[in-house]
Amino acid sequence: MHESMEKILEKAEVLIEALPYIQRFNRKIIVVKYGGSAMLDETLKSQVIQDVTLLKLVGFKPIIVHGGGKDISRWVELSGKTPEFIGGLRVTDSETMEIAEMVLNRVNKSLVSLVSELGVLSVGISGKDGELLHVDKKTLEGQDLGYVGEVKCVNPKILYDLLEKDFLPIVCPIGVDDNYDTYNINADDAACAIAEAVHAEKLAFLSDIEGVYRDPDDPETLISELTVSEAKELMASGYIGGGMLPKLNSCISAIENGVSRVHILDGRIAHCLLLEIFTNKGIGTAIISDEEPKYYN
Amino acid sequence: MHESMEKILEKAEVLIEALPYIQRFNRKIIVVKYGGSAMLDETLKSQVIQDVTLLKLVGFKPIIVHGGGKDISRWVELSGKTPEFIGGLRVTDSETMEIAEMVLNRVNKSLVSLVSELGVLSVGISGKDGELLHVDKKTLEGQDLGYVGEVKCVNPKILYDLLEKDFLPIVCPIGVDDNYDTYNINADDAACAIAEAVHAEKLAFLSDIEGVYRDPDDPETLISELTVSEAKELMASGYIGGGMLPKLNSCISAIENGVSRVHILDGRIAHCLLLEIFTNKGIGTAIISDEEPKYYN
Amino acid sequence: MHESMEKILEKAEVLIEALPYIQRFNRKIIVVKYGGSAMLDETLKSQVIQDVTLLKLVGFKPIIVHGGGKDISRWVELSGKTPEFIGGLRVTDSETMEIAEMVLNRVNKSLVSLVSELGVLSVGISGKDGELLHVDKKTLEGQDLGYVGEVKCVNPKILYDLLEKDFLPIVCPIGVDDNYDTYNINADDAACAIAEAVHAEKLAFLSDIEGVYRDPDDPETLISELTVSEAKELMASGYIGGGMLPKLNSCISAIENGVSRVHILDGRIAHCLLLEIFTNKGIGTAIISDEEPKYYN
Amino acid sequence: MHESMEKILEKAEVLIEALPYIQRFNRKIIVVKYGGSAMLDETLKSQVIQDVTLLKLVGFKPIIVHGGGKDISRWVELSGKTPEFIGGLRVTDSETMEIAEMVLNRVNKSLVSLVSELGVLSVGISGKDGELLHVDKKTLEGQDLGYVGEVKCVNPKILYDLLEKDFLPIVCPIGVDDNYDTYNINADDAACAIAEAVHAEKLAFLSDIEGVYRDPDDPETLISELTVSEAKELMASGYIGGGMLPKLNSCISAIENGVSRVHILDGRIAHCLLLEIFTNKGIGTAIISDEEPKYYN
Amino acid sequence: MHESMEKILEKAEVLIEALPYIQRFNRKIIVVKYGGSAMLDETLKSQVIQDVTLLKLVGFKPIIVHGGGKDISRWVELSGKTPEFIGGLRVTDSETMEIAEMVLNRVNKSLVSLVSELGVLSVGISGKDGELLHVDKKTLEGQDLGYVGEVKCVNPKILYDLLEKDFLPIVCPIGVDDNYDTYNINADDAACAIAEAVHAEKLAFLSDIEGVYRDPDDPETLISELTVSEAKELMASGYIGGGMLPKLNSCISAIENGVSRVHILDGRIAHCLLLEIFTNKGIGTAIISDEEPKYYN
Amino acid sequence: MHESMEKILEKAEVLIEALPYIQRFNRKIIVVKYGGSAMLDETLKSQVIQDVTLLKLVGFKPIIVHGGGKDISRWVELSGKTPEFIGGLRVTDSETMEIAEMVLNRVNKSLVSLVSELGVLSVGISGKDGELLHVDKKTLEGQDLGYVGEVKCVNPKILYDLLEKDFLPIVCPIGVDDNYDTYNINADDAACAIAEAVHAEKLAFLSDIEGVYRDPDDPETLISELTVSEAKELMASGYIGGGMLPKLNSCISAIENGVSRVHILDGRIAHCLLLEIFTNKGIGTAIISDEEPKYYN
Repeated sequence: MHESMEKILEKAEVLIEALPYIQRFNRKIIVVKYGGSAMLDETLKSQVIQDVTLLKLVGFKPIIVHGGGKDISRWVELSGKTPEFIGGLRVTDSETMEIAEMVLNRVNKSLVSLVSELGVLSVGISGKDGELLHVDKKTLEGQDLGYVGEVKCVNPKILYDLLEKDFLPIVCPIGVDDNYDTYNINADDAACAIAEAVHAEKLAFLSDIEGVYRDPDDPETLISELTVSEAKELMASGYIGGGMLPKLNSCISAIENGVSRVHILDGRIAHCLLLEIFTNKGIGTAIISDEEPKYYN
Repeated sequence: MHESMEKILEKAEVLIEALPYIQRFNRKIIVVKYGGSAMLDETLKSQVIQDVTLLKLVGFKPIIVHGGGKDISRWVELSGKTPEFIGGLRVTDSETMEIAEMVLNRVNKSLVSLVSELGVLSVGISGKDGELLHVDKKTLEGQDLGYVGEVKCVNPKILYDLLEKDFLPIVCPIGVDDNYDTYNINADDAACAIAEAVHAEKLAFLSDIEGVYRDPDDPETLISELTVSEAKELMASGYIGGGMLPKLNSCISAIENGVSRVHILDGRIAHCLLLEIFTNKGIGTAIISDEEPKYYN
Repeated sequence: MHESMEKILEKAEVLIEALPYIQRFNRKIIVVKYGGSAMLDETLKSQVIQDVTLLKLVGFKPIIVHGGGKDISRWVELSGKTPEFIGGLRVTDSETMEIAEMVLNRVNKSLVSLVSELGVLSVGISGKDGELLHVDKKTLEGQDLGYVGEVKCVNPKILYDLLEKDFLPIVCPIGVDDNYDTYNINADDAACAIAEAVHAEKLAFLSDIEGVYRDPDDPETLISELTVSEAKELMASGYIGGGMLPKLNSCISAIENGVSRVHILDGRIAHCLLLEIFTNKGIGTAIISDEEPKYYN
Repeated sequence: MHESMEKILEKAEVLIEALPYIQRFNRKIIVVKYGGSAMLDETLKSQVIQDVTLLKLVGFKPIIVHGGGKDISRWVELSGKTPEFIGGLRVTDSETMEIAEMVLNRVNKSLVSLVSELGVLSVGISGKDGELLHVDKKTLEGQDLGYVGEVKCVNPKILYDLLEKDFLPIVCPIGVDDNYDTYNINADDAACAIAEAVHAEKLAFLSDIEGVYRDPDDPETLISELTVSEAKELMASGYIGGGMLPKLNSCISAIENGVSRVHILDGRIAHCLLLEIFTNKGIGTAIISDEEPKYYN
Repeated sequence: MHESMEKILEKAEVLIEALPYIQRFNRKIIVVKYGGSAMLDETLKSQVIQDVTLLKLVGFKPIIVHGGGKDISRWVELSGKTPEFIGGLRVTDSETMEIAEMVLNRVNKSLVSLVSELGVLSVGISGKDGELLHVDKKTLEGQDLGYVGEVKCVNPKILYDLLEKDFLPIVCPIGVDDNYDTYNINADDAACAIAEAVHAEKLAFLSDIEGVYRDPDDPETLISELTVSEAKELMASGYIGGGMLPKLNSCISAIENGVSRVHILDGRIAHCLLLEIFTNKGIGTAIISDEEPKYYN
Repeated sequence: MHESMEKILEKAEVLIEALPYIQRFNRKIIVVKYGGSAMLDETLKSQVIQDVTLLKLVGFKPIIVHGGGKDISRWVELSGKTPEFIGGLRVTDSETMEIAEMVLNRVNKSLVSLVSELGVLSVGISGKDGELLHVDKKTLEGQDLGYVGEVKCVNPKILYDLLEKDFLPIVCPIGVDDNYDTYNINADDAACAIAEAVHAEKLAFLSDIEGVYRDPDDPETLISELTVSEAKELMASGYIGGGMLPKLNSCISAIENGVSRVHILDGRIAHCLLLEIFTNKGIGTAIISDEEPKYYN
């Protein structure tokens, strides 16, 4: 009614273009690590939720793993404490852990509602539900980080059950140790462990970087695809900066444990997830196994 | 890589726009009567197949019911006979029936292959398979039309079974009478009877007309939506031309037997099916029950 | 080894005594509203969790609905606000709602862990998950309570799915309105609405009262069993005090909507839930339909 | 009423005799290659259909694979072409392929109706449906045969699905190559490939020969049972005539790929299929693996 | 090999003749009351078992209900008592009941083994198993018959479960009263009650009579088919002898409670069951509802 | 009402104590060999049935295998024969076998009724049902024992089917040989073979001994737990008396074939089964694999 016929036909073409991608990932599990700016900016947040919901509706099985954004620090300060970090990890005493759990679960349920609004049923869980995530206490070069855990084992039953019942699972990265004490988990690590446990087809990190650069100082050297071997070489070369090292290690681990493709996407680009999946435009960097053929070159 | 970022973002928007439509028809059965130009023109044919395949992939349950195009007449002539019609219906002696069955089944299987090429498994059946369509011999004002049948009962088991097993059923309109003799069925009627039997959400006729006109001589009077009552009034008014009368009767019958919406679409428009379902652009005319609210006005 | 044989035989007798009760409630849903002292006292809390876990293990299908205890007020004060109540209901502005949601979800997950420790898998959800609880804004005699909702509809799919997959569902009473804004719900009301929606066999309120008294001033007049008619008479009589009135109304509503028995139990008594179900000792007051025979008299 | 009691008791004995055979093949898949005279003679055709239907009703899972009889040549001539053969294989240009597909599909559906008349639901498919049969272009000593394919792979999903849903599948030997072009397949080869793919218990060829002769010139030397080794020796001996060689090779391949018994039956004998299965009368020649014990000697 | 071809073809014809009967009763439940001579004569016994096993193998769902033959009296005498009957019913004191239960269960298990030998799995149960048969104490004109019960209710779960798991259930007519005391039940009555409870298509009594006669003194007046109305008239006419009256009442009750056809068969005729079902030879008398058309006339 | 609150709280504690045991054996199969005094004394019998029923209700999957008690000898004598034993095994001619089968099946069904009374559905079967137990004729040092069999193979389908359908299976130890002749089986052996075939978690022998003694003459030397190695040593030491040797061999065989724990319980102690499972009081002797840790020491 309101659009020109030409415009409308273009739309049909876009949908038709998506056909082979929809088909390729039909009923495949895709784990999306959701964090950074895409979580803080309301427009970006709304777009990420739209993207994941669309993936669900066209037959994919997405799982969201999210971080807590800036709210944890805000509440820690409100309670009269000073947020403390060692090596990028939050030092988490029991009061901080209480706040982190409160904030993460609230973020979790607010994501559930955003997905609901788009007509898809989801369930928000933490690593406590169905004993999804068991952790060991993490230490960093001998320093006590408090209630910071690293994933020891994943019990994916609750995820499989929710997917079977057609819910979209949304996971916040909290786990328990063998004494059932509560621990914070780095969201990247949690996403990685979950993707491995459910044999995800894809693991996508939405973060505030454009991807991996051959030379971090030269924006022209963004790498579209990187095999595991190349990634290891690159890390050995010394060119890869601090923050990127653990992320690349996570990517490599995921690939080596059965995930087919890992993507480092720039969460600051609107609909980066949809674009990565439904178009031939490379967004960010894909890590793939040495055996897989590259799409771009 | 090859498209501007802006272009790409537009694409994402189109996909996102489709979200509510995908959701609304998720797991709903849509019967598509496929015939006319959309069957003769290779580009249009390819687009219809793309449309239906996309519907399947994003979670709809389409069923195609098709006609035989012009091939039946070509082979009848080749066999030395003159095609004969009474009141628009082909007079079908046993030799013509043999040819019609051969041609329709071949068209049927060629559609199966086109769908296969797009990565969706389909199965081509006639009304004989699983005893889908039983007919009575049809007579037209006392004149013997030969092996022309009208649907007496539909046994939808085979359709439900194929849908459950995730195949796209493609049906050619041939049935048997109580003596298991073979009969030709008008494809519109077959589509209608099938849509009613499987309680389809939608029944869409792809035909060579733009839709229903309030005044057939005035192209400005195309009607977007028509309730059953309005349709009956219109037919009573005498404005509706000959060919349209039986089609409208079919539409009304379908609505009255539980189909939610019936669409008369202009099959000559590329991707008319997709446009009807995924955009707010009204293509052709929709017949709806008196209780349903109209979308357009 | 360490106990006398006599002692041990007594134990066997207790287990055998439980047999008919286990049989009667096999695979029946029991909704437990958990709040009050039983939530604050660590020993009582541990006993309630043991009770519910035992019910689960011997074949019942318990669902816990819990309140938030005193933590909400603590955090409201910490954030610099003064908790405010009208008619016993917390006035809930958006900041208070944020805190309530954080606290309730954390309590929720801590209950999940307590159940896990006893070897039963549970999942903690709020009314947002699977769109379990939809609310309307509640008003009290024209006064605006802010984000306080009353249950408008319950979508029990998520509960049925979790029970089918053998999880123990633990629900915190938060819901959304039609705009997907977050609302606090009175936990008694949420438990009641859920019990009705899943056709629970039993609904048990663990609270800080001994039960219903014929004469609130005379501890000898505790009523063991009350039919709906008797309850209505009692309320009409004017003897029932303020706090008890809405609770009794909830009980009556539950019975009238298909729940078989509603219990008001004294949560300050150790294992009150187990005692109610597995012994002939009446703990608190049971509300039953007029047709049901009484056990005690 | 109309028969003597003695006669009737004989009938009961025949049914009882069938008992062990019914039991042995209960729920086993039997692939029947149907062609030759048994397809041309109406009485024989009716008997074959009765036989297969009976097998279905008493618990077997038969699959029919059929040829096209003489109709293909008739229609090729009608269209003004001269049927051409090289080495027994029809040279198939695109027009001939079109005719073959039409004729085969019509034969296919007429068999479906015959089975229906006996009260069993069947579904007629070609190798296009559910992508059952993928082929490579076949060449014969360098000569181009046109659209003649040899089976490259079988996707048995559609067959398993139809059997599970209690239909009798009837297959016509048409397949597609990697470009989804249509190809004719030798029906013996198609039956063989299908029997292997579904791990059939039996594969029975109904053909116009009495079986395998030790000495083709001596009718007394018909062989009842032949192990694979014996068959290979026989072929090496040079006694086996031209037409029999490819058939024997098919039989050997089937046995070596997991089919338990292959039968070459004389389709000109009434109810040859039933007799082979339900009596101890050897009809034609059975090919068995070297390990299996012989029934006859 | 050993039979003439002609003989063999006759056999095929018999099997083909059975086709419509096999189809008509496919997956239908048939209750066979087995008793009298057919139980005492080893050849007849073996034939009955063959018949029932064949019915099972070709897709029917038979259930056998049997009596105890002469063994009960033999063991009663061995224990030093004199068998006593009132009105054809065994007076059953507790010792006699013990013997009856022992004998009936042994007969039950021996039938299980006979069926096993023919390759079909069966399970022998009494009315105690799965609480199949609950009884009230029966009195006959005020006389105490001891532990003789009449069926009060049937809990068919165990029968449906065994049929679902593909076993042939064999039932001996023993039940319990509300105190779980053991009672003997008339086998005809038990068969009747079971046939009604499982909505059997057929109930066949194998007994030592040829059927119902219009004039008991004239063997020419055997009635092939009798509607319920005709049966009632016949009983009113006074022509029907003593033993036949309760049997006819049972038949009428079965028809009126949903069993489609009841047959009184002469169990002394070899394979009477098979002949009744698979041929058009009427064996004995069929009782049908007034609405059903007769086969014979 | 009638008990002191203190008493009642003790009861709750007992139930809570059972929690970890209920959890550990949830949905595990437990085979109970039931015989000896526990079968003769009505009180003990009632307690055993209560115990097994409770196990069923709280989620275990018990299977009872029972002997025939003293009734067989009583009936053998009544029939005028003298019971004869060789090496503890009853010499079983065909008449004795007939009696044994009668008696065992009656005992079997009386147990079924006892379980029914407690509200659990059970089914009584012998080794003939579903061809559960196939035997070879047993010989003892060359002496013919008649119809005494040893288990050759177990077909557990009927047990799995009954458990799936929520029945409690009760088995009497009768089997058939390859000619389908009936054989008596030692109940301990039958229980053992069944426990192995269904991969039972536990096998418990209720017998008239207190357990295994290190020194049979010193009641202080009762052994609580015995690994397979220790049991073998003990048997090699010569201390183990005659009757215990075959029982210990059965226990060892069961452990070596996958049963986790075998218990020799003193059936003369009330509720010995419940006590063994739900308390930390060791009743009798447990045989465990060498790898398993001991509970008691």
